[in-house]
Amino acid sequence: MASVQQPNAPTPKPSNPTSSIPDTCKVVSAVTIAKSLLAEVAKDLQLLEYKPKLVGLLANEDEHAKTYAEYSAKTCKENGFDFDLRVVSKADIEESILAANTDKNVHGIIVYYPIFPSPRQDQYIQQLVALEKDVEGLSHKYIFNMYQNIRFLDIPMCGQKSILPCTPLAVVKVLEYLQIYNTIMAYGNRLFGKTITVINRSEVVGRPLAALLANDGAKVYSVDLDGVQIFTRGRGIKNDKHEVAETDMKLEDCFPLSDVVVTGVPSKAYKVDVNMLRDGAVCVNFSSDKNFDGPAVKQHASIYVPAIGKVTIAVLLRNLLRLCHNRDMAESYKHMARQARRSMDVCSLHGVKIEAAEAVVKKAIAAGYLNEKSDTLAVEGSPLPAGSKDKTKTDGLMTELETLWSQLPELNIKEQAEKQEELDRLLLALDESFQKEEK
Amino acid sequence: MASVQQPNAPTPKPSNPTSSIPDTCKVVSAVTIAKSLLAEVAKDLQLLEYKPKLVGLLANEDEHAKTYAEYSAKTCKENGFDFDLRVVSKADIEESILAANTDKNVHGIIVYYPIFPSPRQDQYIQQLVALEKDVEGLSHKYIFNMYQNIRFLDIPMCGQKSILPCTPLAVVKVLEYLQIYNTIMAYGNRLFGKTITVINRSEVVGRPLAALLANDGAKVYSVDLDGVQIFTRGRGIKNDKHEVAETDMKLEDCFPLSDVVVTGVPSKAYKVDVNMLRDGAVCVNFSSDKNFDGPAVKQHASIYVPAIGKVTIAVLLRNLLRLCHNRDMAESYKHMARQARRSMDVCSLHGVKIEAAEAVVKKAIAAGYLNEKSDTLAVEGSPLPAGSKDKTKTDGLMTELETLWSQLPELNIKEQAEKQEELDRLLLALDESFQKEEK
Repeated sequence: MASVQQPNAPTPKPSNPTSSIPDTCKVVSAVTIAKSLLAEVAKDLQLLEYKPKLVGLLANEDEHAKTYAEYSAKTCKENGFDFDLRVVSKADIEESILAANTDKNVHGIIVYYPIFPSPRQDQYIQQLVALEKDVEGLSHKYIFNMYQNIRFLDIPMCGQKSILPCTPLAVVKVLEYLQIYNTIMAYGNRLFGKTITVINRSEVVGRPLAALLANDGAKVYSVDLDGVQIFTRGRGIKNDKHEVAETDMKLEDCFPLSDVVVTGVPSKAYKVDVNMLRDGAVCVNFSSDKNFDGPAVKQHASIYVPAIGKVTIAVLLRNLLRLCHNRDMAESYKHMARQARRSMDVCSLHGVKIEAAEAVVKKAIAAGYLNEKSDTLAVEGSPLPAGSKDKTKTDGLMTELETLWSQLPELNIKEQAEKQEELDRLLLALDESFQKEEK
Repeated sequence: MASVQQPNAPTPKPSNPTSSIPDTCKVVSAVTIAKSLLAEVAKDLQLLEYKPKLVGLLANEDEHAKTYAEYSAKTCKENGFDFDLRVVSKADIEESILAANTDKNVHGIIVYYPIFPSPRQDQYIQQLVALEKDVEGLSHKYIFNMYQNIRFLDIPMCGQKSILPCTPLAVVKVLEYLQIYNTIMAYGNRLFGKTITVINRSEVVGRPLAALLANDGAKVYSVDLDGVQIFTRGRGIKNDKHEVAETDMKLEDCFPLSDVVVTGVPSKAYKVDVNMLRDGAVCVNFSSDKNFDGPAVKQHASIYVPAIGKVTIAVLLRNLLRLCHNRDMAESYKHMARQARRSMDVCSLHGVKIEAAEAVVKKAIAAGYLNEKSDTLAVEGSPLPAGSKDKTKTDGLMTELETLWSQLPELNIKEQAEKQEELDRLLLALDESFQKEEK
């Protein structure tokens, strides 16, 4: 009954027509999921007027890092992105990052770790990458936003989305592909009703992942060697963001309650005891070790994803596009904000208020697109005396300008650019009209 | 993270941008779901070369039945179907059904119950409706197939789908719309991993519904006043069809385990205690009484469907289309089967076997499209002596015929009709070629 079939379309002939029961576990490969993400990426890339460039900085002799660098180069090129691998010494890594930060032709930076023996030093290096080029989403600000469920960088304008760390986001994308996210529900709540166990609570993947899933509405059992924590947005997901609660539950208590089990245990020896799984659970492994025994898990799971590496690389490109978009958006919004202030200036010069533009200026200041400039904002406008022909004309132009300013913030970059000419014409005409009136 | 957004598309501006948390319970109306089903129905209707006609038989003074009859008339007409309401006396109902059964211009029959004081007599009336016109899916054969998870009427040809009873099917369609059916999984297994409580175990809706859902892979708690039964296809859904197990569980034990709660309690007084629901449960009510307190359930559910009546009518039209399709399919398959036998006859007359056609004949006999005819099947063919030019030509034609017969059963009605001419030409040529050889 599940599939929507046209009665007149050829009916699929099941191999066992009496019951039409196929394999009960659907195995989904990372390649399949990555393909669907890369198709989206390709579509979005076409909308850009330039070719995004990713710089990879390799400052170690680690074979894994090298392989990963080569693989990212290959994926970039295959998908229409520029990739520039810069092999540098440990001593030069800091300077290389700073150089790439300020290079306008670089849109994203990825640094291959580990570099230094001390993880703390690597973390310091991580924070050197400019926010607007941090394709891996590892900057403190991005991580903070993720935990706080803050999804935009420029509230209240909301033109720039906060970047999410690649591997946790890859797991999210896997769960979206598997339709665990229910798109019937409102964006931000689409895991409501789902219980998910995440085995791994590292700072790099496990904990951010648990937070992401809980912020999207799930009840998450986050498991590591120390025990189990529960991440949720509370009963009825009434809270804006997740909270963490300690519990005495054991892993074996979590399994029977979990719709989804996500594993990331870096150990060849570790295998999930599939007999404890809820019948029909969805199983996803992001560890490079196989945390599920393939044949065994297929006896119990409804869906099994054995690895997600290729999805992570696709997500990296997606993040790179987001960075490009954010950059273009910032430029466009800054320009718009300046224009709004200019509109206010023209009007206030003649003692008139233009509310829609003023609203944009206020928001732009809050979003960080414009500096506070108290003199402009302080001007108190007052209506002109009614009656004259010029007054009528001015009123008409003012209405046009108000309308334009109430529309502009809702437009996308291209549409905003197209309105530029109209805005210039209006401001000029208005200035003239004011001057006539005042004569 | 859940929605797939193009980075360059205008970003949706959440009303509360810090967290973008909308209402946590999505209320979905039957109208919305019915619309999407009726759109499918409209598409399928276009493929038919005639206008299906539904006959409604009203043999009671029941106000509800009258209203329902009027509503079905309205829905039929609005959606491009003919509807003929026949008001008859109780004494004439039997004859009226039999008349409609044999009337070639009638494609579906719906009888409005109750008619007689005894439910047994109404059940007898129900079974009078011809299988191929039973739009409500209440014939014993359909009900049997549903419980047995037999999805076709003409196994092993599998051209005619078995009809499902309207209200249980409407609930299935609701759950499909709500994406509880996961289309990532194989058809027939798409509820694997889902736990569903159905409160109502009537023969008309509750029990068939529990069976349908379990046959599709769910674990179903079927609840009525006598207690709880568990319907499943067993651990790992390894069985072809559901089994029923008794349990000592109480309703309150089922709630916390259930992803979905479906209610059909015919009582104004009955309300589900929403505090017992699993947080984020999906709640669907098919009773004409509201089994959930609206404001209360929205505090706990992720999705709430307050009623399904309009979906049931849409499903009725869908069933009517299926009946039309089955009728056309039967005609086409019968014709094909006769042609296959003719091909065998032509060949066997000359002592040659045509395996693909023979396979079709065997299947058609098993599916009931053709009668056994032992003399034809008993003919043992043998290859012709090789060498002559005529032999080569005959071989070529035989290969063509074999190919055609291996393709024909996979084609849809229209494609089968198109191949008719080719088949006639081939048989004629083959007969001639055989005769030349034999001279």
